[in-house]
Amino acid sequence: MIKLNELTFEKRTGGNEMRFLHTADWHIGKKLHGFDLLAEQKDAFCQIKQIAAAQNVDAIVIAGDLYDRAVASEDSVAVLNKMLKELNLEEKYPLLAISGNHDSAIRLETGSEWYTATEFYLKTKFSDAFEPVTLNDTQFFMLPYFQPQMARNYFQDESLKNLPEIMEKVAAAMVQEFDPTKKHVLIAHFFAAGSSHTDSETMLEVGGLNPVPVDLLEEFDYVALGHLHDKNALKHPFIHYAGSPVKFSISEAETQKGVWIVDTDPYQAKWIPLKPLNDIHVLENSFAELTDPKLYRAIPADDYVAVRLTDRAVIDDIMNKLRHYYPRIISLSRVNGRESLIADENNGGQVNLDPLELFESFFEKMTDEKPTQLQEQIVQESFEELQKGDTYETN
Amino acid sequence: MIKLNELTFEKRTGGNEMRFLHTADWHIGKKLHGFDLLAEQKDAFCQIKQIAAAQNVDAIVIAGDLYDRAVASEDSVAVLNKMLKELNLEEKYPLLAISGNHDSAIRLETGSEWYTATEFYLKTKFSDAFEPVTLNDTQFFMLPYFQPQMARNYFQDESLKNLPEIMEKVAAAMVQEFDPTKKHVLIAHFFAAGSSHTDSETMLEVGGLNPVPVDLLEEFDYVALGHLHDKNALKHPFIHYAGSPVKFSISEAETQKGVWIVDTDPYQAKWIPLKPLNDIHVLENSFAELTDPKLYRAIPADDYVAVRLTDRAVIDDIMNKLRHYYPRIISLSRVNGRESLIADENNGGQVNLDPLELFESFFEKMTDEKPTQLQEQIVQESFEELQKGDTYETN
Repeated sequence: MIKLNELTFEKRTGGNEMRFLHTADWHIGKKLHGFDLLAEQKDAFCQIKQIAAAQNVDAIVIAGDLYDRAVASEDSVAVLNKMLKELNLEEKYPLLAISGNHDSAIRLETGSEWYTATEFYLKTKFSDAFEPVTLNDTQFFMLPYFQPQMARNYFQDESLKNLPEIMEKVAAAMVQEFDPTKKHVLIAHFFAAGSSHTDSETMLEVGGLNPVPVDLLEEFDYVALGHLHDKNALKHPFIHYAGSPVKFSISEAETQKGVWIVDTDPYQAKWIPLKPLNDIHVLENSFAELTDPKLYRAIPADDYVAVRLTDRAVIDDIMNKLRHYYPRIISLSRVNGRESLIADENNGGQVNLDPLELFESFFEKMTDEKPTQLQEQIVQESFEELQKGDTYETN
Repeated sequence: MIKLNELTFEKRTGGNEMRFLHTADWHIGKKLHGFDLLAEQKDAFCQIKQIAAAQNVDAIVIAGDLYDRAVASEDSVAVLNKMLKELNLEEKYPLLAISGNHDSAIRLETGSEWYTATEFYLKTKFSDAFEPVTLNDTQFFMLPYFQPQMARNYFQDESLKNLPEIMEKVAAAMVQEFDPTKKHVLIAHFFAAGSSHTDSETMLEVGGLNPVPVDLLEEFDYVALGHLHDKNALKHPFIHYAGSPVKFSISEAETQKGVWIVDTDPYQAKWIPLKPLNDIHVLENSFAELTDPKLYRAIPADDYVAVRLTDRAVIDDIMNKLRHYYPRIISLSRVNGRESLIADENNGGQVNLDPLELFESFFEKMTDEKPTQLQEQIVQESFEELQKGDTYETN
């Protein structure tokens, strides 16, 4: 982990090459088991600003999911508006941002026609993808999250079956717009995985969500992706997920958060980690161990704790007892015995068996393995799609 | 009624004086008894654009309630964004807009820091009111809708009891900022009525909502108000409600919609009416009259009809029968007999006894008079406040 205050400001030659910061999946408004994460998100943002300054970047790329939900709360709107204003109007960075599947493209689009005057490029429409934004030596192709039908309409081609077929056509249409004297960067928000020629195992298909094979993207010099929250979800020399700047679930407890600093010429992508304001810890211990000062004093009081209890015995009022030592306990499960997941009745409403946990529990029972982060994310997305509906439209 | 295509483009001398168009209460997203009014709103907007061009105005003032609700639908967001873009970025009008009580100040504020570069002044904060925007010979003081507590905080004065007291202080603070070589226009969104010295009858008080006495506003050369939907709610030489550009309720069936064209020097305010795309008709007739071609053929099929039935007899399936003649029937009441308000069970869901109708009915029973438009609006606002809650925050 680098310390931010040790970052030296890097001198750069004033050439035509680009250096940009690649981040994604801010999910402003996201909650972690009932806990508001705005403090963590503001802190990560502050670190991103410091890194951008220290690395002397020419632009900042945000690859979708700026908000956590289509209808963000007023607090979230105020926070994101302030962040974008700081980066673009105060710090004067050119900004390149697309809408992700969590954003409402129509809501997020507000103001975008005015933003371009200060080099804030906010793209929310499929058709935007084929008019690249050129900064220095680089053409940026900005592909917001889209529904397959939007692509079929745009290409007037109902035969396009799935995302791989669509992306083959999208990439070809973009290549048509390539200026051969420039570098070419794609900014997009989707699942990318495997290769179109490998066996079906890597071509995970869940509920019709086909991942985009990475070899369709190899015409680009760099692909700045959003959607998956762990940068390690894909290992590729120039196709990268930035991941989320904050840990958003227990399954991300061990993932390192950060941003990519990308140079176009010569090409280089450098990972710079972010330090969590309040970390997530998974403690697989007995009640006796958990209440031992040696353990609980090592955990900062504002950090989040997921407990995987090893005891089999019934312990009265356990959540309230544990909350005494771990004020931000976010989950409690038992790893031994038949009673593999319990929820205390006296938990004050903060520990819920959310759908993802139910899925995890079910998956583990069925397969004796834990779901991968990708699998969890697919289930999460699907559940959110189902939940969306029109509940906010009913009155 | 003037015909728009007969409007001649008015030549103006290129002096320093201002001519602006004053409109308000667009309420984009408003529904009329279940019927979407976007078509009517788009048509009224188109007329406003034509009037602005024909009158060769220097700026357009929108005095609050751009949206009908704090969380507007995606359709409403898309429509309002397009309208504002057309006026400011395409037609190049300076725009002066404030948030009203129906708008979420925080949501509406999105982008406002970028908008000023093209003379789109969108003010949503109480503190914005004391930094006037100067265009040509005029200082515009823009006072968004606000809660009394915001004013108490701003002035650090907890003793400010009510809106009249607050507005006295607000007006005095604005006068402090007056440039004596300029004209002074206030743009605001509140109830204004009577005078602070008349008897209590005109000082209507309902639920603590005190109207602002107009004599507090007499330091200004013009006051561009929003909130009440009928320009005739207040008669004053230079303090005007623009009213809504579209008829939003049955009680507005007879009000004329339009915009003010205001000249600063010499002062003149000219009312220019808008032609309703689909009008509202209140028909107080018998069933026999209503089904007579002489009556129903005179009503365009897309117009809205509120029926006040004079029959006492029970008529089977009356709503469906009437809908045959009046496809957009929006309400049915009986004016004779004890059964003063009925709702047909087979009405297809479009005729509801909404809270305002229940209030009207109750008010009439208790007082033998119809509530005034102001009284109705107060009840409507109060009900909406109650309804707001956090329903869109629950998942």
